[in-house]
Amino acid sequence: MSKSELQRADIEAVLAEFKDPETGRSITQLEQVKAIQVEGANVSLNLALTSHSAPIWEETRNNLETLLRSRLPGLSQVQIEISEHERPPVKLGQVGLTAKSVIVVGSGKGGVGKSTIAASLALGLQRAGCKVGLMDADVYGPSIPHLLGASGRPEVSEKQIGSDEAGNPVVARRITPIDVGGLKVISIGFLVPADKAVIWRGPMLHGSITSFLRDTDWGPLDYLVIDMPPGTGDVALTLSQSLPPTGAVIVCTPQDVALLDAVKAIRMFQEVRIPVLGVVENMSYFLCPDNGKRYNIFGNGGAKKKAQEFEIPFLGEIPINIQLRVNGDEGNTGANFNVPEVASPLEKMCTQLVREIASKHQEEPPLPSLSVL
Amino acid sequence: MSKSELQRADIEAVLAEFKDPETGRSITQLEQVKAIQVEGANVSLNLALTSHSAPIWEETRNNLETLLRSRLPGLSQVQIEISEHERPPVKLGQVGLTAKSVIVVGSGKGGVGKSTIAASLALGLQRAGCKVGLMDADVYGPSIPHLLGASGRPEVSEKQIGSDEAGNPVVARRITPIDVGGLKVISIGFLVPADKAVIWRGPMLHGSITSFLRDTDWGPLDYLVIDMPPGTGDVALTLSQSLPPTGAVIVCTPQDVALLDAVKAIRMFQEVRIPVLGVVENMSYFLCPDNGKRYNIFGNGGAKKKAQEFEIPFLGEIPINIQLRVNGDEGNTGANFNVPEVASPLEKMCTQLVREIASKHQEEPPLPSLSVL
Repeated sequence: MSKSELQRADIEAVLAEFKDPETGRSITQLEQVKAIQVEGANVSLNLALTSHSAPIWEETRNNLETLLRSRLPGLSQVQIEISEHERPPVKLGQVGLTAKSVIVVGSGKGGVGKSTIAASLALGLQRAGCKVGLMDADVYGPSIPHLLGASGRPEVSEKQIGSDEAGNPVVARRITPIDVGGLKVISIGFLVPADKAVIWRGPMLHGSITSFLRDTDWGPLDYLVIDMPPGTGDVALTLSQSLPPTGAVIVCTPQDVALLDAVKAIRMFQEVRIPVLGVVENMSYFLCPDNGKRYNIFGNGGAKKKAQEFEIPFLGEIPINIQLRVNGDEGNTGANFNVPEVASPLEKMCTQLVREIASKHQEEPPLPSLSVL
Repeated sequence: MSKSELQRADIEAVLAEFKDPETGRSITQLEQVKAIQVEGANVSLNLALTSHSAPIWEETRNNLETLLRSRLPGLSQVQIEISEHERPPVKLGQVGLTAKSVIVVGSGKGGVGKSTIAASLALGLQRAGCKVGLMDADVYGPSIPHLLGASGRPEVSEKQIGSDEAGNPVVARRITPIDVGGLKVISIGFLVPADKAVIWRGPMLHGSITSFLRDTDWGPLDYLVIDMPPGTGDVALTLSQSLPPTGAVIVCTPQDVALLDAVKAIRMFQEVRIPVLGVVENMSYFLCPDNGKRYNIFGNGGAKKKAQEFEIPFLGEIPINIQLRVNGDEGNTGANFNVPEVASPLEKMCTQLVREIASKHQEEPPLPSLSVL
C-alpha cells in the first residue's frame, strides 16, 4: 500500500461520514462521489447532488471541505466540483404526483402576503436550480396568475390509460400547466374569470384540489409549492389525506391580531399532521425611502417570538417595500430578486427552508431503499 | 284666518314635503314634527328623529332649515330642536332579530382591515347615538374580541317559551352578548380558545351563524354590524336567506391584487342579492410621522375608481397609521376616534354610510305601514 493509496482510503472514510442533504444518507452509499484524485497533499473530487438541494449546493460543498480538513489536518488543497445527480422523484400518495417535496404555504389570515411569499419561494427555488411547480389552491382569491403576469387557459386533454372489461377505453383528464419561464403553474384563476365570484361548497373544493394535483402534468419536480386558501382547514385536510406534504410554511404579519391567527394556522397544520417547517414574518418594517428610517408599521419581531415559543424555525423577515408591491401589481414578482432590500431576505428565506428540510432528513433518515440492500 | 294662521299652514305644507331619513316618508305623516311655534317671521319647532339616523341628525336639521328658507323667503329666524323619536325596530326574517338595519362588512380578501373597519363602524354609529350590536361572523379568525379588548364568556341560559302537546316545557337557548361600553358584541372568539383552530364544515357554519343571530338577546337595535369571514359566499348566502340584510360594505386595500378580490366580493353580494352600500379603501396611504410625506405603500385611489366603475358609493379612504394599529393590538379600537388623522375619515365613513341608507329609503320608500292607513 503506497502512501497515496493510504490517503485515498482515509479520504473515503471521511466521505462515508458525510450525509447528502436531500436524503440524509451517506454520499458514498449512494455513489454520489466521483473522480476522486489524490496527489500528494492535494485532493480533488466531484460531488453529485440533486437539483432538490440546489439552493444549498455551495453550503454543502463548504461543509464537506470543512469536514475533510478537520479530519485530515495534512490536507493542502481541496477541490470539490459539483455535478448534477439524477434521482427521480417518487410518486406521492393517491394522486401519483411525482415530486420530492411538497411545501404548503399557509396563513391563519388573508392579506398577509401569503401568495407573494409562495410565489417568491417557488421563484427563488427555481432560480437556484430546482425543478419547481406552483399550485394556487387559494380558490377563493387566486392571486398567483396576477402576481406572475400569467394568463391563458391550461390545455386540457383526454388520454387513454387503459380499457375496461368490455374493451371500452378508459380515459384520464390531463391538464398542461402554464409555463412561466420554466415554472409550472396551475391556478383556479386560469379557469374562472377574474371578476367572477366562486361560491365553493366543501365537497366541490375537495374535488377540485385533488383533481388539480392528480390531473396536472407536472412532470418530475423537486418542489411543488402550494399556495393555500386562508382560514378553513378543509384544503389542508384534503392534502394531508391525499399526499404526504413535506411541511408547511406559515406567513404572518407582525401585529398581534395577525399572530393570533398564525398560531391558529400552526395548530391547524398540527391537527392535520402536516409538520410546520417555519414561519416567515412579512411586512416586517417599512424602510422610508427618503429618510432611511425604519417604521414598524405593523409592529416587528412578533413572529420570531411566536416561532421560538412553538419551537418552529424562523425563516426571516421580509420588509414592506413599495417596489415589491408595484412588481406584484405588474405581474413581475420575479423582479423582486433584483431589489436589493428585498432580494436578500427572500433568498435567505428559500435557503433557510431548504436547510430545514435537509436537516429534517438528516434527523429522520428515510427507510433504506432497494439500492442499498 | 289670521296672518299667523296662514303662515302656519304654509309651514306645515313645506314640512309635509320633507322626508324622514330613516323611513323616507314625510315627517308630518308620521307625526315627527311637534311644538310648531310661529311668531311673526320667526318659526321654531321640534323635529323628532329616531336614533337610527343619529349620525345625520345635524345634517337633517340643516336640510330642513334650507328647505323652509327656500320655500318661504319671508322667514327670519328658524329654530329646529331635535328630540328622540321612538320607533321600535321590526323583527327581521326567520331569526326574529329586532333591528332597523343590518350591515354586513365583507372583503374579497382577508387582512385588509375588515374587522377594524367593522368595529369602527359599530363604534362610530354608537358614538353618534345609535343602538348598535356587533356580530363577529368571521368564524375562521374572530378578531373582534381582541380589537375591542373584550373577553369573557357570554352567558347562555335556557328559557321556557311554551309547552308541547304533552305539557312538556319547550325551551329556547338565549345568549347574552358581551357589553363593551354599551356596544353589544358576540363572537365565536368568546366561545373558542384564542389559539384553537376551528375546522368548520359548511353545515356547522350555517348553523352557528343562524344560532348566533337567533339566540342572542340583542334587544332592539338601530344597527347590527356583521363582520363577515373573507372568501366563501356561504355565510352571505345564509344571511340573505335568514334575514334581509340592509346592505354590504366592502373593505379593500388599494393594490391591484386586492381590488381583484374586492370585485369578486361585489359580485358575490350581488349574487346573493345583498345590495352593496359602499366601498371603503383601507391602508390608503402612509403619512410619515417624521417628514410628513405621503407614501402610497399599497397604491392609492384604486378602490374609488372601482366604486365608480361599478356605480357603488365610495365611503372614504382610511390611512395606514401606527397608532391605529397599536390601538387595535391593545384592544382599544375606540381610541382611534381620538387620533386626528384617523378620526375624521372614520367619522366620515360612518356618516356617509348612514346617508347612503337614508337616500336608499328615500328612493324606494317602504310599503306604508298600518299607522298610515
